[in-house]
Amino acid sequence: MNIAQPYLLFLGDVTDPLAAKTARGIVQWRPQACLGELRLTDETVSLGLEALTLEQAKANGAKTLVIGTANAGGVIPRTWVETLITAANLGFDIASGMHQRLTDIPELAALASQGNIQLFDVRHYDERLDVGTGAKRQGKRLLTVGTDCSVGKMFTALAVEKALTQQGINAQFKATGQTGILIEGTGISVDAVVADFISGAVEALSPSFTDHEWDIIEGQGSLFNPSFAGVSLGLLHGAQPDALVLCHEVGREHIRHLPHAALPSIRQTIEANLMAARVTNPAVQFVGICLNTSKIDDKEAEALCLEWSEKFNLPVTDPVRFGVDDIARRVAAL
Amino acid sequence: MNIAQPYLLFLGDVTDPLAAKTARGIVQWRPQACLGELRLTDETVSLGLEALTLEQAKANGAKTLVIGTANAGGVIPRTWVETLITAANLGFDIASGMHQRLTDIPELAALASQGNIQLFDVRHYDERLDVGTGAKRQGKRLLTVGTDCSVGKMFTALAVEKALTQQGINAQFKATGQTGILIEGTGISVDAVVADFISGAVEALSPSFTDHEWDIIEGQGSLFNPSFAGVSLGLLHGAQPDALVLCHEVGREHIRHLPHAALPSIRQTIEANLMAARVTNPAVQFVGICLNTSKIDDKEAEALCLEWSEKFNLPVTDPVRFGVDDIARRVAAL
Repeated sequence: MNIAQPYLLFLGDVTDPLAAKTARGIVQWRPQACLGELRLTDETVSLGLEALTLEQAKANGAKTLVIGTANAGGVIPRTWVETLITAANLGFDIASGMHQRLTDIPELAALASQGNIQLFDVRHYDERLDVGTGAKRQGKRLLTVGTDCSVGKMFTALAVEKALTQQGINAQFKATGQTGILIEGTGISVDAVVADFISGAVEALSPSFTDHEWDIIEGQGSLFNPSFAGVSLGLLHGAQPDALVLCHEVGREHIRHLPHAALPSIRQTIEANLMAARVTNPAVQFVGICLNTSKIDDKEAEALCLEWSEKFNLPVTDPVRFGVDDIARRVAAL
Repeated sequence: MNIAQPYLLFLGDVTDPLAAKTARGIVQWRPQACLGELRLTDETVSLGLEALTLEQAKANGAKTLVIGTANAGGVIPRTWVETLITAANLGFDIASGMHQRLTDIPELAALASQGNIQLFDVRHYDERLDVGTGAKRQGKRLLTVGTDCSVGKMFTALAVEKALTQQGINAQFKATGQTGILIEGTGISVDAVVADFISGAVEALSPSFTDHEWDIIEGQGSLFNPSFAGVSLGLLHGAQPDALVLCHEVGREHIRHLPHAALPSIRQTIEANLMAARVTNPAVQFVGICLNTSKIDDKEAEALCLEWSEKFNLPVTDPVRFGVDDIARRVAAL
């Protein structure tokens, strides 16, 4: 899967800013990949990019129309379909993180099967994979892991990649979820592969390499999340990480959406991940903790990072508030 | 998925007795479900069942033709297709654990889509599933776990189900792999579901119940197998087991097919499984260890079971040599 950039970001008629999180992530992490935005109504949320028609964007060199929004059912609204078909007829590739497949829209499927355009349904994965083996691969790998889902694992991975790059270390972000794939233009949605192939998918995503220094792999879920822990463990084994960064949201009281499911402690999360990761890399170690401290103020956040830094003997930071330079320095020293 | 019994077991032209393992398992555990066998040549392995033509079997009440063999590529040989089509035309449902789908054979697909027959590709899973939640369900559950793949987890689960039944306890076997599904006639191949739904598949397979006492759930893989551990962890969380039985092959030197991957110790396997299982059932406990002792003699096996029984303070047995009555008694007492 190689989604051609630059993108025209399609926002449909979405009015809830949270629903445009994916588009916002692309703009934040790959601004040079974003040529402009396309909104269907004046009320639609804006990312502050140049407003372009399909024709204007095409003339400016846009390669892919990216559906940068999410909704509850994951269904592509009927009011968007005309725009998508027009884009395809103009020669745009189209990428979507929606649950409903672009290939289920007959006009789009027809254009794609004629070889005119490519459709990328990044929430799905249909290509052939091999079963993972855990055999040692060349190159160094960092994986972000967490106490739960939605605690900043993608954000942290992208921040670490950026900080390493700024420190002159050649690092590559490896995307394992929809938003990450749209940001990077490539990747594998590991929760969408057949269960037998989870670790194999990660081995394919981050194969042996000698042309750069680090792969920074986006984590998913948590070993303690009763919905998705299988994905997290296969991802951990497949990544055979040299370095782990633990992500956590301060103030979260239970596993997301599951009030009956207790959140693990930081210590439990560290121990469980180290024990499991040693199956494919006995030398694995934690290099830092990234906290989402949005529920407390700057001062409290700073104090908490300092306290936990001493407690766990690791750099502890909020990547949004304080950056990840200390973690990147520790990674660079490995 | 509900495969109608009794079966006519189809052995094709297979001459390697090991390739007929699935058929042999069905005969061993569900002899009353096996009406007869169908072999294409005189050299084909036999299960010792009555040889029946398709017409004879149909007249005797057979409902499903079961492909009871495996081969390396999982492809249905062309020399079998005529027999399968004839069977379908006679009104047989067909069940297969092969990788290649029965539905890829156009004549069979046509008969199935007309509603004349049902095709069961038990290695695949296409039905809708919900994501697991880990919420507490009614009923008691036992899960077999292991140091690795192919160490007797299905055999042990079926043996425990049988021993409990003989002790007057109402227990139901829950199949999670191809052979188990063909034996039981129902189940979900958990390694074939999309990764996000592993624990959800097991929650669907063993939902809340009050009409019997125990679900005996077939385990898969191992938390220490770098190819398949994601499946094992999702299965463990989804099963929310009250009781675990550890399975192990004595003398195995490394993870199956992977000389670089170390086998975990019994102690490690116990601790890792307890830690992970507590996420969905804090009261989980081990109730026994089942060893495949085929590489040592009776006397050595007996001595080893005794030694480990004291060491781990659990009933330790080889289910083939010595049965699982002690384990079943411990289960019954829970």
